Amino acid sequence: MAAAFLPATTLRLTPFSTLRFLSSFPLSNPLFRPLRRPLLEGFPTNARRRCFCTAVSQSPGSGEGKKVDNSYHNRFGSKVGEFRKKLKIAEVKGGADQGLGRVGQSLSIMGWVRTLRSQSSVTFIEINDGSCLSNLQCVMSPDAEGYDQVESGSVLTGASISVQGTIVASQGTKQKVELKVDKIIVVGKCDSSYPIQKKRVSREFLRTKAHLRPRSNTFGAVARVRNTLAYATHKFFQESGFVWVASPIITASDCEGAGEQFCVTTLIPSSHETTDTSIDAIPKTKGGLVDWSQDFFGKPAFLTVSGQLNGETYATALSDIYTFGPTFRAENSNTSRHLAEFWMIEPELAFADLNDDMACATAYLQYVVKYVLDNCKEDMEFFDTWIEKGIIHRLSDVVEKEFLQLGYTDAIELLLKANKKFEFPVKWGLDLQSEHERYITEEAFGGRPVIIRDYPKEIKAFYMRENDDGKTVAAMDMLVPRIGELIGGSQREERLEVLEARLDALKLDKESYWWYLDLRRYGSVPHAGFGLGFERLVQFATGIDNIRDVIPFPRSPGSADF
Amino acid sequence: MAAAFLPATTLRLTPFSTLRFLSSFPLSNPLFRPLRRPLLEGFPTNARRRCFCTAVSQSPGSGEGKKVDNSYHNRFGSKVGEFRKKLKIAEVKGGADQGLGRVGQSLSIMGWVRTLRSQSSVTFIEINDGSCLSNLQCVMSPDAEGYDQVESGSVLTGASISVQGTIVASQGTKQKVELKVDKIIVVGKCDSSYPIQKKRVSREFLRTKAHLRPRSNTFGAVARVRNTLAYATHKFFQESGFVWVASPIITASDCEGAGEQFCVTTLIPSSHETTDTSIDAIPKTKGGLVDWSQDFFGKPAFLTVSGQLNGETYATALSDIYTFGPTFRAENSNTSRHLAEFWMIEPELAFADLNDDMACATAYLQYVVKYVLDNCKEDMEFFDTWIEKGIIHRLSDVVEKEFLQLGYTDAIELLLKANKKFEFPVKWGLDLQSEHERYITEEAFGGRPVIIRDYPKEIKAFYMRENDDGKTVAAMDMLVPRIGELIGGSQREERLEVLEARLDALKLDKESYWWYLDLRRYGSVPHAGFGLGFERLVQFATGIDNIRDVIPFPRSPGSADF
Repeated sequence: MAAAFLPATTLRLTPFSTLRFLSSFPLSNPLFRPLRRPLLEGFPTNARRRCFCTAVSQSPGSGEGKKVDNSYHNRFGSKVGEFRKKLKIAEVKGGADQGLGRVGQSLSIMGWVRTLRSQSSVTFIEINDGSCLSNLQCVMSPDAEGYDQVESGSVLTGASISVQGTIVASQGTKQKVELKVDKIIVVGKCDSSYPIQKKRVSREFLRTKAHLRPRSNTFGAVARVRNTLAYATHKFFQESGFVWVASPIITASDCEGAGEQFCVTTLIPSSHETTDTSIDAIPKTKGGLVDWSQDFFGKPAFLTVSGQLNGETYATALSDIYTFGPTFRAENSNTSRHLAEFWMIEPELAFADLNDDMACATAYLQYVVKYVLDNCKEDMEFFDTWIEKGIIHRLSDVVEKEFLQLGYTDAIELLLKANKKFEFPVKWGLDLQSEHERYITEEAFGGRPVIIRDYPKEIKAFYMRENDDGKTVAAMDMLVPRIGELIGGSQREERLEVLEARLDALKLDKESYWWYLDLRRYGSVPHAGFGLGFERLVQFATGIDNIRDVIPFPRSPGSADF
Repeated sequence: MAAAFLPATTLRLTPFSTLRFLSSFPLSNPLFRPLRRPLLEGFPTNARRRCFCTAVSQSPGSGEGKKVDNSYHNRFGSKVGEFRKKLKIAEVKGGADQGLGRVGQSLSIMGWVRTLRSQSSVTFIEINDGSCLSNLQCVMSPDAEGYDQVESGSVLTGASISVQGTIVASQGTKQKVELKVDKIIVVGKCDSSYPIQKKRVSREFLRTKAHLRPRSNTFGAVARVRNTLAYATHKFFQESGFVWVASPIITASDCEGAGEQFCVTTLIPSSHETTDTSIDAIPKTKGGLVDWSQDFFGKPAFLTVSGQLNGETYATALSDIYTFGPTFRAENSNTSRHLAEFWMIEPELAFADLNDDMACATAYLQYVVKYVLDNCKEDMEFFDTWIEKGIIHRLSDVVEKEFLQLGYTDAIELLLKANKKFEFPVKWGLDLQSEHERYITEEAFGGRPVIIRDYPKEIKAFYMRENDDGKTVAAMDMLVPRIGELIGGSQREERLEVLEARLDALKLDKESYWWYLDLRRYGSVPHAGFGLGFERLVQFATGIDNIRDVIPFPRSPGSADF
């Protein structure tokens, strides 16, 4: 029975064992000691720790592990421990005082060695735990406990360590505080083949090490900014009363139309174990056609290219919704701008027109950019220094300056009058190319985001609301410097008869759109929305020029590794 | 040039036009009026509106539309309007006073008619906008503007309307306040075939109307609670210092192993337009095998079944991460418990053991359940009344009571001693079945969540950390009443040589796991994580018994509609 009261792991003292640092503290009662032994236990710390668990109020070691409250009388079982947030370097150094308020505090930090420098009587170790760009500089003299591990060469770049010590004011100019180490434990050694060394390596090379690249400065910063943009996205929409809706990933719907799609199937009996799949194993009809009736969904199914049409069904019930999920394109585009798998944000507003749509898109972009500038200062300064000079200024402009709008017709006139030679022709009725978009936002309007609206209906999707001129639709594209189009949206055609006429004109099958048309049959409302490629937004906010470097595991033609 | 200053839509006065309600207000200067005309314009309102847009400070109508600030000198373009949150019924009635503080306020609301009751001199219209379960009761006498639309029968269940009036104390007992209507406009009529009528319809039937079912009480409430659970998930992890990581959806990695997977391919030249695909069109090798080299990714690719292994790569760089994205199973399970496409939450904690993992899972579940109880009171009361009696009490217990843990070995002993006949055998080494899990959590521990830990290694995945007994691994399953297993997690095997030995024992190809093993080669750390099926959580929190009713567009064998 005692097994229930023992931790899964009996701790052993093994040199360089990952658990060695757990094992160096005596246990007063090995049978009934606290069931949760936090990894930091034994390390004195004054660090603030947040506790989320409301069920546990006793301090560790106060005798839990037997009966836990009066309502429970089963002799089996013991309570689950308290969840305590780990102390991280961002908390130590991230405040306005850069850690000076912690001088004199005793604490411990766990992370990975970035560099080690040994001088005559003192060793400097830079440790990073990914919570922020900054390392914590650890200063260590030979009398520190565990110094033998430094001497034996175990503390190499990439090794994971736990250090315990006291925060002191730093002599150096690069940081305000450092850790004077009392004790060091190597948790996991690092093989000398470690590819993320201090010397700068190319981003191309790091793409082949996608499992290790977040340990580098650039990719760590990208991951944090990406995370912050995602959370700011949720915050903006939630605070504005929008409901997050999971639009489907697999769709057999006939009405998505645009874009080359991936087929999702169980007809091909492939597996990870073998790639030897006989063509004959694929079910076929007597006529030699693929027998879709035997596929998982009973018909061809695809990966979604957009959640918009599904999103509209929820907007016309809940008023305002947004999707945030992956979408796919099977286009054979091996460029720095395209991914086969990327994340999209697609809000949809009921009782809204194109002006509401533009206002929402503008407010959204300003909100998330401001949120990143406010919450990722250190990472943004890194990008400003190493990736794109002036990016903080550029983004501050986005937050502070008014966004402009102009009609497509005016945009064409502006381009025709521009004293500039374009590669692609400029003519009413033709779509704007990237060079045109960038001229408008970067040159004509001096780096300010610009929304172009009311495009010719021939170059836009069937669902966009026809304007009264009969020639244009209530579409809008938001152009931003460096990226070009960042957001595309439209008011949707809510008039049943106009939408049906449009489907007829485009020779699209109305039957396939039965449920989409139903939204216009039953209490139709003016509604509008937009779509934003999340990775484009991360590029915009970080200055990273290759889209494969702003998503953890990029998918592109010929490449789906990791 | 004036076109740039005109809205996309010239407003026309058409009976029952969706824009009729926009068109009934005179425009002082049609050429230079404010470019954003909020839909509510013309309706006097004292309602609080939040403004997110920092760039716009002028009030509408103050002459914008020409030059906007001194730094901009292009004669094209005009500024984008201010984003204003729509006033919703939840804001009117959702406060602690249920709207009494707004008595006397003049405001307008847009939504869909739920019911209409005409008495001799007064008409009652219940309007819902999806922001909350409650309708707003609108009281209307024949002298109200637009009353002709009621007389002509346009105000039917399902129609979308805009109503303007004054909040008054309600005579009825069902609500504290109602709206005395001055003016009504039918935005979109509703065809009489509307299937979501007041009479209760089965959830089976509504599954065939997935595009309209969020307009029903049950599915509206599910959508709001689902949204709240998702947001609470992000809040919990963000506040705890975790970074959201997008694990890949498409994977050609050989090391996911478990579960039947969907193949993602462009080899089958299918399209939405035609399902007539000749087998001969599929590229094949001379030997009659499928020629994977011609597929999009150059080899077989699949939909992910878990983001865990990818998540581990980021946890061992950033310390704590979580994924929240769709995952897939191609299992032919047509049950109320299985979906082919569902959302998973998978946190991963570095420098953490199984006890930390259990503590985190417990704190997480308590946090999100408490968040829903606090923020979805009305919806939860609805579920308590109509879906599962006592659910609020059950969930409050989860928040307040301690979670228990016991070893698998003890769980087996407990089951063997139970005075109960089980369908499936109970024996050390066999996995626990749903009936066993529910007995433990519902009966043996009286409805309290219980975590079973330290399972036999033979029934668990290769990556779980081997305990020192050599027989069990540091795995844990959290069992909750009604659902059974809600969360499954483990400490991961961080010892390179132990992990390699395990792969060998299972005859798995070590080469395929090269990047996963690299994490143990370079600064390995004890780490742990868990997985949570998000739809199971929504079921747990709402009492809805069929999993297809807690995701907007369920995918299952033979079904990928909408």
